[in-house]
Amino acid sequence: MDVVLIGSGNVASHLGKALCQINHTVKQVYSRRLDNARELARQLGAEPIAEMNAMQQTADLYIISVKDDAIAEVIGQMPPVDGLVVHTAGSVSINAVSTFANHGVFYPFQSFIKGAQLSFDTIPILVEANTESNTELLFELGKVLSSSVLKAGSEQRGALHISAVFACNFVNHMYRLGEKVLVGSGLPFELLHPLIKETADKVLRMSPSDAQTGPAVRNDQQIIQKHLHYLSDNREEQDIYRLLSESILKNKV
Amino acid sequence: MDVVLIGSGNVASHLGKALCQINHTVKQVYSRRLDNARELARQLGAEPIAEMNAMQQTADLYIISVKDDAIAEVIGQMPPVDGLVVHTAGSVSINAVSTFANHGVFYPFQSFIKGAQLSFDTIPILVEANTESNTELLFELGKVLSSSVLKAGSEQRGALHISAVFACNFVNHMYRLGEKVLVGSGLPFELLHPLIKETADKVLRMSPSDAQTGPAVRNDQQIIQKHLHYLSDNREEQDIYRLLSESILKNKV
Repeated sequence: MDVVLIGSGNVASHLGKALCQINHTVKQVYSRRLDNARELARQLGAEPIAEMNAMQQTADLYIISVKDDAIAEVIGQMPPVDGLVVHTAGSVSINAVSTFANHGVFYPFQSFIKGAQLSFDTIPILVEANTESNTELLFELGKVLSSSVLKAGSEQRGALHISAVFACNFVNHMYRLGEKVLVGSGLPFELLHPLIKETADKVLRMSPSDAQTGPAVRNDQQIIQKHLHYLSDNREEQDIYRLLSESILKNKV
Repeated sequence: MDVVLIGSGNVASHLGKALCQINHTVKQVYSRRLDNARELARQLGAEPIAEMNAMQQTADLYIISVKDDAIAEVIGQMPPVDGLVVHTAGSVSINAVSTFANHGVFYPFQSFIKGAQLSFDTIPILVEANTESNTELLFELGKVLSSSVLKAGSEQRGALHISAVFACNFVNHMYRLGEKVLVGSGLPFELLHPLIKETADKVLRMSPSDAQTGPAVRNDQQIIQKHLHYLSDNREEQDIYRLLSESILKNKV
């Protein structure tokens, strides 16, 4: 396939290299800043462009891999094309690209993590397109890159994003609150490292319900009240402790 | 040292074996159920006992490793001894053993995780005792077992317990809520595995504050409101999402 990459960031760069490795041709790399386009284009043997009217209209695949809030602008500027146009954003609907006859979404899930080394082989890729054959094309492309490719609609992608807020952003905030309590008492955060590692490892082997431990799931009110009392100087953390303890008990299976 | 083990559970069993390996002698293993005492005593070459009046009064170290709510009862029944008496419970004060002339706490932190294989070498051990020499004795014993031994008072141990509720119990509940959202939309929990692993790995390399990502820390109200709307069928999870998002923003450094 002849491919045009719109964007030169992390996802665009990794996708471009992976596509070249499996013998597709990246014809052009577009970026608003020509310098950025040049750097990636050089690595891919492609033409760098910074003007939309220089964009080829005959490529097979156009991959829009820019920041979420720049997608609409980029699409508004693109020339009309027949090739398959996809974006790579988790929380943007397929409708964003529906002005194109052939359109879809190619979402590598791990891109969720800022600064993480992007290795496609184990990270889930979610694909969606306007026709079955376009979906298949993206699915097959995904399978070359990763062992975990799923067809998923925009609503499912939205749910995945929310679940990732819980399992990544909120999890990290729990680490942060744990750190605050610990450091506040003069102990180093590193004390929690083995526990953090084991807690994550455990849930890769069993369901979170089966893995749940602690005073809340045992409904150990004596400990819970003791902890709430300890947190009484910080109303917000006390509220969080109370709400999550109640939620654990309610979700008990 | 001559040691008496009170209790025959996970911690008692691992501690007993570790003590034998470093050439201490476990003289007796006490358990309310003689069968349990027998099994561990056999492995340690010790005498099993189920009656407190059979307990030797001349040992150097008495390790009380029973369930938190059984500690007071066990202590009430023990004969008067001169040796160092310690319990191994994270959330019980040193005062629980203060009726003995020499007393302290020897707390292997990882015992927090139910069912986890207890390998002492990397898990933190917190020690505390009534005198400096008793503290040193426990500290040296800890150092033979683990590379991470700390002297910590009962209040610090209490703080560690609370921080572990955040970094383990609440973290696991976040996995659970993420799973609920995902499975509710027809996607498998396994999709989150790489993210869960990476989120934990990341915080072993950098501080939780630096690792924080997501709509809350960016104060991306458009995404936050979208997610809250998605969760509107479940008031409790909506409350958790809102409270944690606010807390992330307030804790932003």
